[in-house]
Amino acid sequence: MSTSSPSAADLVENLPPLRVDGRLMALRHRLAEAGAGVDAVVVTALRNVRWLTGFTGSNGAVVLFGSGRAVMVTDSRYAEQAPAELAAAGCGDDVEVLIARRSTAVAPQLEGVDRLGLEDSIAWREQLAWKAAVEAEVVPLTSLVEQLRAVKDAAELARMQAAATITDEALASVEPMLRPGVTEIQVQQALDAAMRAGGASGPAYDTIVASGPNSALPHARPTDREFQAGDLVLIDVGATVDGYRSDMTRTFVLGDPDDRTEVMLDLVGLSQSAGVQAVRPGAGAAEVDSVCREVLAQGGMADAFIHSTGHGVGLDIHELPTVASQSAAVLAPGNVVTVEPGVYFPGVGGVRVEDLLVVTQGGCRALTRYPKTTVVPLAR
Amino acid sequence: MSTSSPSAADLVENLPPLRVDGRLMALRHRLAEAGAGVDAVVVTALRNVRWLTGFTGSNGAVVLFGSGRAVMVTDSRYAEQAPAELAAAGCGDDVEVLIARRSTAVAPQLEGVDRLGLEDSIAWREQLAWKAAVEAEVVPLTSLVEQLRAVKDAAELARMQAAATITDEALASVEPMLRPGVTEIQVQQALDAAMRAGGASGPAYDTIVASGPNSALPHARPTDREFQAGDLVLIDVGATVDGYRSDMTRTFVLGDPDDRTEVMLDLVGLSQSAGVQAVRPGAGAAEVDSVCREVLAQGGMADAFIHSTGHGVGLDIHELPTVASQSAAVLAPGNVVTVEPGVYFPGVGGVRVEDLLVVTQGGCRALTRYPKTTVVPLAR
Repeated sequence: MSTSSPSAADLVENLPPLRVDGRLMALRHRLAEAGAGVDAVVVTALRNVRWLTGFTGSNGAVVLFGSGRAVMVTDSRYAEQAPAELAAAGCGDDVEVLIARRSTAVAPQLEGVDRLGLEDSIAWREQLAWKAAVEAEVVPLTSLVEQLRAVKDAAELARMQAAATITDEALASVEPMLRPGVTEIQVQQALDAAMRAGGASGPAYDTIVASGPNSALPHARPTDREFQAGDLVLIDVGATVDGYRSDMTRTFVLGDPDDRTEVMLDLVGLSQSAGVQAVRPGAGAAEVDSVCREVLAQGGMADAFIHSTGHGVGLDIHELPTVASQSAAVLAPGNVVTVEPGVYFPGVGGVRVEDLLVVTQGGCRALTRYPKTTVVPLAR
Repeated sequence: MSTSSPSAADLVENLPPLRVDGRLMALRHRLAEAGAGVDAVVVTALRNVRWLTGFTGSNGAVVLFGSGRAVMVTDSRYAEQAPAELAAAGCGDDVEVLIARRSTAVAPQLEGVDRLGLEDSIAWREQLAWKAAVEAEVVPLTSLVEQLRAVKDAAELARMQAAATITDEALASVEPMLRPGVTEIQVQQALDAAMRAGGASGPAYDTIVASGPNSALPHARPTDREFQAGDLVLIDVGATVDGYRSDMTRTFVLGDPDDRTEVMLDLVGLSQSAGVQAVRPGAGAAEVDSVCREVLAQGGMADAFIHSTGHGVGLDIHELPTVASQSAAVLAPGNVVTVEPGVYFPGVGGVRVEDLLVVTQGGCRALTRYPKTTVVPLAR
């Protein structure tokens, strides 16, 4: 890691405030563009509610009327917290708070609404409750707020950079543990503790430490398996800072790699660099996927790449844009995506390399700064 | 804690295997009893899929036909893991595994099904996809598997006892940190680390450490606030062992409580004991709630108890049966519930005491063994 980059502690100390100004307005424009023809919309996905208002509680919905008026419904547990968080995020004057047991308590205010948009991520049970509570026709809306969330502002990027740097530093502090006899779970626990000590509220997802044949499972869970000389050790790890997440993967080899392992490491490295090169504004996400896939195909390992190339990251660990062969997304400045090709041979092992990247005006910038060289000499 | 009880390490070492034998059969009976009139049912809630089959992946659905035939659909990431987990749990011969990108790929097998039951916890988007994929009428089913899950077997209880004992031991190891100058986050991190060191896969939910006025927020998140002499410190903490969770709360006071605090502590303690006494087979869950509420009312603090008395715990931290005034549940042996009355005074502080209890043939048994006396002398 470059010594000129600020430390995780510096980044965490100097986070700019998160502001939500303008986001409700952006949603209104998005609705109009989408031609959904709805008179009001209910946002129920909690991370969307958080992104729109700053509210971090576990129950809440935002109703946005065509007039621009907005109401947030939450329950009595949040009677103090909700107005305080909305004010801190800069929408305290724009959003009324309604305290009620169920969010459908706002229904009387929806009289006169003909078509009510509901996020289709809502539970079917809740959709049925809304349908029963209002006279309006209830219309499914797909990923409207999620599309807005795909473009990060500076305050969001600062949190994601802090999360990525905390992860870099945690992995650097734990790398000396990678030697025969240490277990996957021991390394996982050390990583999680180091991220917390570094200022993360917690891991961004269940940390993966997968060694030897376990590394052939893309979503392996850490076990009591002890590392052995010659093992591949795949570590997929991220941190959460103020709700925002990071995501990275490095695959280490303990001692000198055999020929097959060396080919796997080289090929995935080349594939990943090619993918990173392809990340720039205007590029299709499917194009990034195909660039990675082609490099692996040239090395005869196309079939061993059994997942998609990447995904957006933010308040959710998987969000828009999706970086996959079927993705219609076109990358734009402010998008944050992973590029993470990998190859997996059941019973043998797997290699994956993943960076977190922000799309800039001219190309992309890596939030992950961890070195790519991951051969661990055994004599130490 | 009694010295005759086994330690967390003993419990974790000696967990009996989890078996799912008979659970699909129980679901068929339950469906028939419920009179849903469906020819087949799709189980999509992941924890229900896990409970029915032992599968722990992040994507999977189980289709159960009237004939008793069952198919689990999951994607290629789990092509190895799924059959292995099903076999280990004892349903490898009863459940076919279908590998597909989307679970609706099973639709062709549903030809001839007139009414297809779908769990109403499914995302509306997914329900729309099922509706489009099948000719059958799609019928919402509420909490069918959840009702079965509310009664735990011995292997499940062993995991929950291990989780509760890990939590007891973690809290005992951290209690000496409760002194002026230490922060909420420091105690939270120490608790989470102690639970992991004790054999938990992680906390059962976000650990709450709330001091002074923060303790008045029932769902407070830990902050950098330093404890002060005289503070109430509310700690709500649980562990996860093999997917099963525990849940407990203790409220400490740093130094001699003032009169008001003493009344709060005494009253909540009495309320909680009365609630525990009321937990027995055949008792209404609403009755347990009202017993707790009455004690607080006698002390003039009914209005300060702003949440329900408790909830079931298992694979989910909140599951059936609900222990609340509106609950129609009748307690049965094998139910695991919390009893957690509390009082909260905004700007001042709050007190909550919570045990995790299993309903037995004769009454109930506490999985939580932590002492109730929580006055921390300051001169130490």
